[in-house]
Amino acid sequence: MFKAVLADSRVWKSIIDSVSTLVEEGAFIADPSGIKLRAMDPSRVAMVDLELPKAAFEGYDCSAEMPIGVNFEDMKNIMKRAGSNEKLELEKADEEARLKIRFRGKTTRTFSLPLLDLGKEELSAPRIPFNVSIKTPAATLLEAIRDAEVVSDFVKMTADQGVLKVRASGDRGEVDVEITKESGELLSIEMKEPAHALYSLSYLTKMMVASALSEIATLMFSTDMPLRLDFNLSTGGKIVYYLAPRMESD
Amino acid sequence: MFKAVLADSRVWKSIIDSVSTLVEEGAFIADPSGIKLRAMDPSRVAMVDLELPKAAFEGYDCSAEMPIGVNFEDMKNIMKRAGSNEKLELEKADEEARLKIRFRGKTTRTFSLPLLDLGKEELSAPRIPFNVSIKTPAATLLEAIRDAEVVSDFVKMTADQGVLKVRASGDRGEVDVEITKESGELLSIEMKEPAHALYSLSYLTKMMVASALSEIATLMFSTDMPLRLDFNLSTGGKIVYYLAPRMESD
Amino acid sequence: MFKAVLADSRVWKSIIDSVSTLVEEGAFIADPSGIKLRAMDPSRVAMVDLELPKAAFEGYDCSAEMPIGVNFEDMKNIMKRAGSNEKLELEKADEEARLKIRFRGKTTRTFSLPLLDLGKEELSAPRIPFNVSIKTPAATLLEAIRDAEVVSDFVKMTADQGVLKVRASGDRGEVDVEITKESGELLSIEMKEPAHALYSLSYLTKMMVASALSEIATLMFSTDMPLRLDFNLSTGGKIVYYLAPRMESD
Repeated sequence: MFKAVLADSRVWKSIIDSVSTLVEEGAFIADPSGIKLRAMDPSRVAMVDLELPKAAFEGYDCSAEMPIGVNFEDMKNIMKRAGSNEKLELEKADEEARLKIRFRGKTTRTFSLPLLDLGKEELSAPRIPFNVSIKTPAATLLEAIRDAEVVSDFVKMTADQGVLKVRASGDRGEVDVEITKESGELLSIEMKEPAHALYSLSYLTKMMVASALSEIATLMFSTDMPLRLDFNLSTGGKIVYYLAPRMESD
Repeated sequence: MFKAVLADSRVWKSIIDSVSTLVEEGAFIADPSGIKLRAMDPSRVAMVDLELPKAAFEGYDCSAEMPIGVNFEDMKNIMKRAGSNEKLELEKADEEARLKIRFRGKTTRTFSLPLLDLGKEELSAPRIPFNVSIKTPAATLLEAIRDAEVVSDFVKMTADQGVLKVRASGDRGEVDVEITKESGELLSIEMKEPAHALYSLSYLTKMMVASALSEIATLMFSTDMPLRLDFNLSTGGKIVYYLAPRMESD
Repeated sequence: MFKAVLADSRVWKSIIDSVSTLVEEGAFIADPSGIKLRAMDPSRVAMVDLELPKAAFEGYDCSAEMPIGVNFEDMKNIMKRAGSNEKLELEKADEEARLKIRFRGKTTRTFSLPLLDLGKEELSAPRIPFNVSIKTPAATLLEAIRDAEVVSDFVKMTADQGVLKVRASGDRGEVDVEITKESGELLSIEMKEPAHALYSLSYLTKMMVASALSEIATLMFSTDMPLRLDFNLSTGGKIVYYLAPRMESD
């Protein structure tokens, strides 16, 4: 038996919004310590790694490991119905192939989502060192990514001398955003060596949906290596994304 | 000659929005006591029955019965132009086949809508007893209907033991909303005997557009019989809908 | 070298929004006195005539006349990225075929827009006398134009006896808006002789986008002659539109 209670149903809504941009189907793993999800997008360019420890919940009860395979589009459509000031209860009996999703507010509204038997794919998170680790307001990073989208489908991230440069260029022009310590927008930077790499803007935009969950984003990368993007939830737990680099044509 | 003045043009806008979801063309009947409209949707599954007594108007003048046949889409497009803090004047001379729709605010804006000669179809409202009559906040009922839409095109309404249950199920899952007295959302319930019936969500959604006009909805039904949905306007008058049941397949 | 600084980037955004509704490509002319743009729409029915004197800018530096040919759709997409509380810097080196568009707010975001070599077309503004000149709140004129759009693609403007009448008619009905001195919406009227003329609503709607820049619109016309519509910017400078009349069919 699995049962988890979240104080604010909209936190789970934002989590599902974030995951569903990348992943069509996937299995949460609930165990006594909390809920985890690790899944790749269909083209296997990006990975999402979600951890919600028991402490992130108002109530949590899970006696043994239990996979909860879902279609994220269906779950997203249910979570669109989340209202303000509503608790969320997730509940699954051992023998049932359905997840109960219950909103408790003025009324009690219970959705029952058919679960998927997805088999088991063991994904490991990339074990790669990152030469640069930067904390910045999630909104600032989101704006820079949207700026880059005006002229291109790809963005070049460059970290050097205490500055994060977000650059893009295409037929429609060029964009150059500098996020500096002086401006107060670069909250911290740890750098073993300068780094620059090219990433897909469409994936970054999808990953930034998680900025609804966290005011701060942590960006890690190395030259021409995958990017890692962390969002720490205020309730506890985190969403981590990994994104493969694009090879630079020049 | 017919002339009616409404203190707030947006009340008429909401009425036309509500009627136009169901009905393409129809004839208001203005007489010395007020304005009435009774019309069915093209597939004759639902009926709207509008009554606006003379007292609902700031000014009202009609010496004899006068049909006012309109295309509701055209009238809706005119009413979209209603501003805040504007009075509405409806005016028709005896010999004219046009309705003047005048907004009086900072400026005076007069629309002239060509009227239709629709012949006369005498519709009587269904004279059926209802075993259940429930008052609930219109917003609560609307949310329950939207919940049901997530998984199905039909909804099962069940009233029993002082609870209104709104249920739907389909391939995408199940929904179960309980509106109870304890929650304060079931304002009153009168029940001769328990009742349950299946109704089309697309029609219910259209009918709920009238929730803009009334904070309270009154829902009446009997097992496998038509549903009646009443909205009482704060200005006086009411909009009543009737909806045929769907046969349950089980 | 050309460099101009605007205190509020959104003023330039509104200017580009206004111009881009009518014009696809055009050349600003920057000279020591300020920036000008005169351009016609592709079907040569309407002209926009923009003047932004040096004084409209927080900083302005231009040593010699310099054409700045742009694709307005591309510039509009860049200006969509304007945030609140951001300064705008426009900058072009003499030898460069690119305009730097820099937003200075929390971060510094620099776009580089490829410029077009458009040749030089000398357009002169129509030198025609206007028998009527009317000042009215831009919002009031905009609402009247939107009213007219409900029933027609054309609008008849009539000025007589201290009233501006905005009228349209079509299969869907008629509209008649009166903007009078008594209502306080006709701020001033100068009239050599009464005037009436028919104009395209789609063009007027495009021109009214400039109402974001000015609370007051000045409307000038004569019977069956072009219309002139002026918006004075609060920062200094103005946008003037000219629109050819439609011949009345009756």
